[in-house]
Amino acid sequence: MDKILRVKMGSKPEYAVEELGDYAGLGGRALTTKVVYKEVPPLCHPLGPENKLAIAPGMMSGSAAAISGRISVGCKSPLTGGIKESNAGGQAAQVMARLGYAAIILEGESPEGKLYTLVVKKDEISLVEASDITGLNNYDAVEKLVAKYGDKAAYMSIGTAGERKLAASSIACTDVELRPTRHCGRGGVGAVMASKGIKAVVLDDAGCSMRQPVNADAFKAANKLFVQGIKAHGVSGQGLPAYGTNVLSNVINEAGGFPTNNFSKGQFPNVHKISGETQAETEIARGGKATHGCHRGCVIQCSGTYVDKDGNYLTKQPEYETVWAHGPNCGIDDLDAIAMMDRMDDDFGLDTIEMGATIAVAMEAGLAKFGDADAAIKLLQEVGDGTPLGRILGSGAAVTAKTYGIERAPVVKGQAMPAYDPRPIQGIGVTYATTPQGADHTAGYAIATNILKVGGFVDPLKPQGQVELSRNLQIATAAIDSTGMCLFIAFPILDQPETFNAFVDLINAFFGLSMTADDVTALGKSVLTMERDFNKAAGFTKEDDRLPMYFKREKLEPHNAIFDVTDEELDQVFNW
Amino acid sequence: MDKILRVKMGSKPEYAVEELGDYAGLGGRALTTKVVYKEVPPLCHPLGPENKLAIAPGMMSGSAAAISGRISVGCKSPLTGGIKESNAGGQAAQVMARLGYAAIILEGESPEGKLYTLVVKKDEISLVEASDITGLNNYDAVEKLVAKYGDKAAYMSIGTAGERKLAASSIACTDVELRPTRHCGRGGVGAVMASKGIKAVVLDDAGCSMRQPVNADAFKAANKLFVQGIKAHGVSGQGLPAYGTNVLSNVINEAGGFPTNNFSKGQFPNVHKISGETQAETEIARGGKATHGCHRGCVIQCSGTYVDKDGNYLTKQPEYETVWAHGPNCGIDDLDAIAMMDRMDDDFGLDTIEMGATIAVAMEAGLAKFGDADAAIKLLQEVGDGTPLGRILGSGAAVTAKTYGIERAPVVKGQAMPAYDPRPIQGIGVTYATTPQGADHTAGYAIATNILKVGGFVDPLKPQGQVELSRNLQIATAAIDSTGMCLFIAFPILDQPETFNAFVDLINAFFGLSMTADDVTALGKSVLTMERDFNKAAGFTKEDDRLPMYFKREKLEPHNAIFDVTDEELDQVFNW
Repeated sequence: MDKILRVKMGSKPEYAVEELGDYAGLGGRALTTKVVYKEVPPLCHPLGPENKLAIAPGMMSGSAAAISGRISVGCKSPLTGGIKESNAGGQAAQVMARLGYAAIILEGESPEGKLYTLVVKKDEISLVEASDITGLNNYDAVEKLVAKYGDKAAYMSIGTAGERKLAASSIACTDVELRPTRHCGRGGVGAVMASKGIKAVVLDDAGCSMRQPVNADAFKAANKLFVQGIKAHGVSGQGLPAYGTNVLSNVINEAGGFPTNNFSKGQFPNVHKISGETQAETEIARGGKATHGCHRGCVIQCSGTYVDKDGNYLTKQPEYETVWAHGPNCGIDDLDAIAMMDRMDDDFGLDTIEMGATIAVAMEAGLAKFGDADAAIKLLQEVGDGTPLGRILGSGAAVTAKTYGIERAPVVKGQAMPAYDPRPIQGIGVTYATTPQGADHTAGYAIATNILKVGGFVDPLKPQGQVELSRNLQIATAAIDSTGMCLFIAFPILDQPETFNAFVDLINAFFGLSMTADDVTALGKSVLTMERDFNKAAGFTKEDDRLPMYFKREKLEPHNAIFDVTDEELDQVFNW
Repeated sequence: MDKILRVKMGSKPEYAVEELGDYAGLGGRALTTKVVYKEVPPLCHPLGPENKLAIAPGMMSGSAAAISGRISVGCKSPLTGGIKESNAGGQAAQVMARLGYAAIILEGESPEGKLYTLVVKKDEISLVEASDITGLNNYDAVEKLVAKYGDKAAYMSIGTAGERKLAASSIACTDVELRPTRHCGRGGVGAVMASKGIKAVVLDDAGCSMRQPVNADAFKAANKLFVQGIKAHGVSGQGLPAYGTNVLSNVINEAGGFPTNNFSKGQFPNVHKISGETQAETEIARGGKATHGCHRGCVIQCSGTYVDKDGNYLTKQPEYETVWAHGPNCGIDDLDAIAMMDRMDDDFGLDTIEMGATIAVAMEAGLAKFGDADAAIKLLQEVGDGTPLGRILGSGAAVTAKTYGIERAPVVKGQAMPAYDPRPIQGIGVTYATTPQGADHTAGYAIATNILKVGGFVDPLKPQGQVELSRNLQIATAAIDSTGMCLFIAFPILDQPETFNAFVDLINAFFGLSMTADDVTALGKSVLTMERDFNKAAGFTKEDDRLPMYFKREKLEPHNAIFDVTDEELDQVFNW
């Protein structure tokens, strides 16, 4: 990871391999954020030639460090208008890191709207006209790419949603089975890749080897303790492997914060039909898998394989957020329908959270009835078909609400809220409101402490303590997102000091550093500061760090809660 | 004008007649702006119950003062997210002023989505369920209203675009012939009226008399000089009466600032086919009218009547902005097609500027070819039909560009630019960028001095002097918009000191005041300050006072001009 590949699109596409310079030592979110912060004019159009798309594996990706396979993409977001970092699992990070690239930076704009495949091998870089896969969705496109470039490579691609430059479009990364199921989902990053004229990136590390630590013995020892800690924690060692992320459905429903029918209720009566427990049981009974890793080196294995009633592969195990978005948030209790929509999102290249939130807004607008799974699938198909309605929906919940004159769009900075209502779980509301990313649960996962009692406990129904909780989690997350480590390591490292120490030791041993916990905090703060500064220069103010007004006006059952963290408190999140 | 009618919508709609209080002495924009500034939470949703719609005749409306029939509506805009004042001619201002209401303030929200007709008579106010006109467009709705409430009343109404809460929807005001042709067009004010549950406002001043001046003789003398001055000026006394506002097509085209094909060129080869001269000739030849007033008391008479080839009424004489928007900006050179779209906009209740700009963006997105008038009419019909595509288009140019992934949306603060390219006419670019209203020519009509050499001359191609020009015009306009006077009085009062004096004397004589020019300036500044403060509290910053980046990147023929007023200069506009 000692070089950067810069691809300049335009009438004559060209590329250059550069030294790291200012970007040395960074990875993942820290690196993509710094590229956007330093190189992208904050007031540029997200789909214009001045925007850039940075792709970066984490600092630890490509090494033997456990669960280090997250890849980040960063740009100015067409969805939020602010800075965006969106990360995913799959194989891309590990392969790209072994190829030695700390980042690929795509800049300029597509020459005459043409799309290319960027092929990156050990000693060869090429831009190939992508006429063979243009217009294809991710599953078909990847199948063709694998036939051409082989089953040892990792692939990143956009579907037709990205080609249409829709603001809910994602970038798909292939998983271990070479399926396009792991998505940099949020913020419309697929549209930015399309605007640069890149349909797919092929990453082939043939001839490359694993990244080696500076201090091999210390690294091995730390990694062992780190893995032990992950496996010892109830969430990362038991709940997630057994039931996947959807283990949360019952938990969040019980807490009364499970947004139902477009955030109009906090509990879903038929939660048992779509819970992680039911999902795992269904998968196992049909011959699918309930425990599976999204990339090699994963020691949590929270994913799985969802097969249809005949036992045929349908999609990877839908995540909790997806099950919620396409399920209860739309009043839908049919796991097969939810899995079908997960498949369609992956195929078209769409963010499942944004799409579920959007369909719920469409239901509120009267385009379908809450609970009507067939109608929801038809709405999603419109996006794949590129109809005008599909363009509305594919532009996300805020645009859908705007075109249909609906007030109740659960968005912050134009991005839809995930699967936790901020009224009865106020900590996550603070994160939604204040993260530079737009409403995002991963940016500061207060659910851990509000609900799961990881890292202590802060009463979710009260405003007290939420700002400090969100602040600390946002800082820690920005650091973790830079390492390439899966965010689920947060559960053990928040609860188990020895696992946190192993995590820091692992990084130190790999790079030959002597970082302390304070250095990790400093890294997180520096990332957040750049993101906030970019957004400020793009015109964001504290008024953008607010939930929509109806979350303060409309009480949510069963707790009859409103969001009552004050604006003044929200403004203290980044006052460290 | 000594009272305010406040209508509170909700489960039990009610109203109250109040004293003026803090609003005493204000009218038009000064009054609507103060209501929004004082009473509307800046972060509320424009279609939510916290927003308010204020309707106010000008300070001089309802009196014998010449050309004083402008009515203002104000609210938080669904199009821009900022404060909005949109004014129109027609009869509403005069009638409402004689009824004694300085403002009607609509607040709360529609009970269960129902629509009502608000009927205001001398001694009777009522809210009548509007089931008879719900779902009708403006022409049919007004015809039914006139049948019910008579031909002496003035009517304000929304069409189906407003009912659908589209962000380009307008509020129509009837003209002298009781046609819904004068629109508070900009900013989506029709959607806000719909969200309050008001389909129409009937204003019947039977039994009321004209407002009387405090100093009758001085008023009469000043009014005489004022009218003489208007008639003596070349623009207001000759050009506008003879050819209407469309006298500008040849002028702006000659200057190279006539946006053609979605602002991609500065001149339209077939301008002669759609110019004001051709338009007037066509109207006269077919038995229409080329010189006509939009309200009683108008002494400029810049309007007219456009009839079809068989001599049947089609629409009022389309304004310059409309002819440009639906014409050259879409590559269209067919006056009949343009007039048809003007009629459709008036009927559906849509802003012609926003719709023309939007259709041009749709053409850039490939939905139709530039120059294809039939296709443009079909696109507009989609809005009337309420199809998904119609909802996209009816949401304006920015949303259309977003849903189709188009960078070239000529918008500021979400509102489309009018008929002057800001690259070769930099003064208007300063106004577009900085007015709190979103891109708007009327807010500070720099064309006067850049092109028409009214009020001096500032070279349109150079950045020098534009900030001062726009500043002074914005201040003067905010004051004029408060009087109820048509903005076209600006031509004689800018050029003829004796006409400016007559204007001030007229106000002083009416109210028994002794205002000076400085007081007029102070009024304008106070209005702008409130508007800016509201926007700031709604999250706007100097970064919102910018043109889209492509106006700095893409040169416009024939001058190969880019917009080169610097950001630092733009930030000085309100530094007075």
